[in-house]
Amino acid sequence: MRKKIISPRKFVKPSFAYLIEKKRDGGEFSQDEIRYIVDSIIDKEMPSHQLAALCSVIYFQGMSAQETAVLSEEMMLSGEVVDLSKITRPKIGKYSTGGVGDKTSLVLIPLAAACGVVMPSMNGVDEEFVISNLDKLSSIPGFNPKMDLKAFIKQLSDVGCVISEQSSEIAPVDEIIYEMRQQTATIPSLPLITGSVLSRKLAQGAEGLVVDVKWGNGSFIKDVEQARQLARSITRVGRSMKRRCVALVTDMNQPLGDTVGTGLEIQEAIQLLKGEGPEDLQELVLKLGMEIVRLAGVAGSTLSAKQTVQRALKEGTAFEKFKEMVEAQGGKTAYLDDPEKFPKAKYVRKLPAPKRGYVHTINAGMIARGVQMLALGSGKSKKLDPAIGVSEIKKVGTQVKQGEPLMMIHYNDESKMESALEYLKAAYRLAPKRPNTPDLIVERVA
Amino acid sequence: MRKKIISPRKFVKPSFAYLIEKKRDGGEFSQDEIRYIVDSIIDKEMPSHQLAALCSVIYFQGMSAQETAVLSEEMMLSGEVVDLSKITRPKIGKYSTGGVGDKTSLVLIPLAAACGVVMPSMNGVDEEFVISNLDKLSSIPGFNPKMDLKAFIKQLSDVGCVISEQSSEIAPVDEIIYEMRQQTATIPSLPLITGSVLSRKLAQGAEGLVVDVKWGNGSFIKDVEQARQLARSITRVGRSMKRRCVALVTDMNQPLGDTVGTGLEIQEAIQLLKGEGPEDLQELVLKLGMEIVRLAGVAGSTLSAKQTVQRALKEGTAFEKFKEMVEAQGGKTAYLDDPEKFPKAKYVRKLPAPKRGYVHTINAGMIARGVQMLALGSGKSKKLDPAIGVSEIKKVGTQVKQGEPLMMIHYNDESKMESALEYLKAAYRLAPKRPNTPDLIVERVA
Repeated sequence: MRKKIISPRKFVKPSFAYLIEKKRDGGEFSQDEIRYIVDSIIDKEMPSHQLAALCSVIYFQGMSAQETAVLSEEMMLSGEVVDLSKITRPKIGKYSTGGVGDKTSLVLIPLAAACGVVMPSMNGVDEEFVISNLDKLSSIPGFNPKMDLKAFIKQLSDVGCVISEQSSEIAPVDEIIYEMRQQTATIPSLPLITGSVLSRKLAQGAEGLVVDVKWGNGSFIKDVEQARQLARSITRVGRSMKRRCVALVTDMNQPLGDTVGTGLEIQEAIQLLKGEGPEDLQELVLKLGMEIVRLAGVAGSTLSAKQTVQRALKEGTAFEKFKEMVEAQGGKTAYLDDPEKFPKAKYVRKLPAPKRGYVHTINAGMIARGVQMLALGSGKSKKLDPAIGVSEIKKVGTQVKQGEPLMMIHYNDESKMESALEYLKAAYRLAPKRPNTPDLIVERVA
Repeated sequence: MRKKIISPRKFVKPSFAYLIEKKRDGGEFSQDEIRYIVDSIIDKEMPSHQLAALCSVIYFQGMSAQETAVLSEEMMLSGEVVDLSKITRPKIGKYSTGGVGDKTSLVLIPLAAACGVVMPSMNGVDEEFVISNLDKLSSIPGFNPKMDLKAFIKQLSDVGCVISEQSSEIAPVDEIIYEMRQQTATIPSLPLITGSVLSRKLAQGAEGLVVDVKWGNGSFIKDVEQARQLARSITRVGRSMKRRCVALVTDMNQPLGDTVGTGLEIQEAIQLLKGEGPEDLQELVLKLGMEIVRLAGVAGSTLSAKQTVQRALKEGTAFEKFKEMVEAQGGKTAYLDDPEKFPKAKYVRKLPAPKRGYVHTINAGMIARGVQMLALGSGKSKKLDPAIGVSEIKKVGTQVKQGEPLMMIHYNDESKMESALEYLKAAYRLAPKRPNTPDLIVERVA
């Protein structure tokens, strides 16, 4: 557990009120002060109301790159740090801020592993309307995301990649801070997001990090400038911690790919692993994949990176690696070989276009909420029905006739349709003129 | 206790996180929302960490006059509201943000009562280095600040003034919020100070309020602009609540008067009640006294207000009223008639000027801390020794020779002298040239 570092300098513990006041007035915390803060949270010596106030003053006043680097390091050291030193291959983490229809992590992790990069990945329960990777993987019968750190390391050594549940031994202080942030409206704090991402990913054994920061109506970041700032924050702080980091700022103003829903998204991921599937996702997988293999040093040039990634897709090694990973975690690979085995929804119906025109904008968040209404189990069950979702989503810029499907809705329960339809219908805006299609990749920050 | 007001409109309770987020983003709370917040604090339904975050976002984003008026009203209604309707005379509250050597309240309350104004006054334990009115009054043997609301009302009816302890029945939500503010570095929040002052003073039965906002090194407000803002906030919000309010912004960059210490200050207050004593205090008492009698409607013009106040001082009715109040609260008035009865310190020594020159600046906060070191009982006792303090304080602009006393130090315990002297010495800066003397009254806000 926590390794306490005794500073050689004499450090007089300040009061928590003093620390809050210092940051309130724009002051910069010393290394000792941040260490003391993290220690006090872990040891439950800081009362929760003072942790709340601290999160709030950090939200308003921010933290310098230096402060955030120390915070990330201390948060990382608040628990176990996975030791992958016995594996000689490069180890890279991939992190996405999350988005509607985003299945790139599911593809990239085995894809990069197929290229010789070790990809450790622990996954949390995702925010609000976003379906988590683990929810998606749970649609594969038998797949088990739970494992201890020993098994985590063994699978990385044997297979080269793993997608598991968060371990409570990894960066335990982040769990406490994260819960506090949810309740104090401080989730969007850049230094706190940065600390959370870096502490967790580095504690999982990553030597470098490729980050996908999404902005738009399907992301919790609604503003492109904020996304750019987060990308800069993570890469800058990563550098301060002597880790290689690259971030892409990408568009999340419409669903990624053609499907939203757990089982449907796994099937789309399989297509992508074979080098097929929707163009936007193919592009994103290629670009992020190239970043990973270059960061890992597996490929030296952009051209070589592109060839490496494309080869793994075309030659089937990426898909094979995915099957290997799923099998290692108990999942039935027969479903991957034959996606027809995935359970089908009782009903499939179209969402008809109310008039002719071009798809002008899509509110991805509303589509996600509509799917959630359809897929959530009744009562207190939070488990999503694997057969439910939407497919064949018409993307921004597509021309449609009146009555033509904007998407196909897969559902089992007619009674849930009405409220779901409200969201799905409201998500679409049609216009007579062809709109500009948004740039998928807005900026690369390294 | 709390009177819950059921709104005729349907009010859907929002989550606390939503309310924090709304204010975080600069939103304005509705009347229902503020009511719900105050209800939830009183009923202990709002978790303390969310109250902490709420105080913090209010600190950073502020509140409109309208919001603050609703908050003050709801805080006032969180407990008992003293009903003085049976007393036909005008009722005015006097509030000072507190300062080193400030004994104006002790003088003004009986002074105004002698002029026919009813002066309810409950007093808290003061902040940091400031000696509270109750600490000062406790140097009069027998004086009892405790009373229930019935006795409080009776004394106001019989005597016309009272200086008592805070009642836990008055604005109980303020106690909870105040404690939270202390621990979350949100004490300086203008709307929260305003809400605290107005809710308490109005709940004590005041119809109008005269406020003395002090700025400087002997106040918790170090910045004159902040003091002006607080003065404007209290008067503006008071107006929104249909109460007459006047505020003076006054200088607190040197001790007020010539003494600091509980018994010594009471003796100085007696001088002032007789129209004697140090000039700065005489001026402040006159100006604030005039504001009170004019606000109360006892005097119509500035000239008549001045004459009314000066008459009460000269004719001895102010001093008689003070004795009457002290007697009503069990204090021995023989001490007031013959201040020689107050206990004397074992030792009195001078603080010698280290060189010749003019007193250029005095750090009043440091003088207060020095006195605190000398006067605090040993061990855990927080009671101040009534004989201890400093007198004959040389004020800014005074010329001194080397070795001439800057003040006289009254003390009983030689062992405490060393650390006290450090503060007292450091409080003075001498310079060869005569400095500009600061304006005592900076601004009047009505």
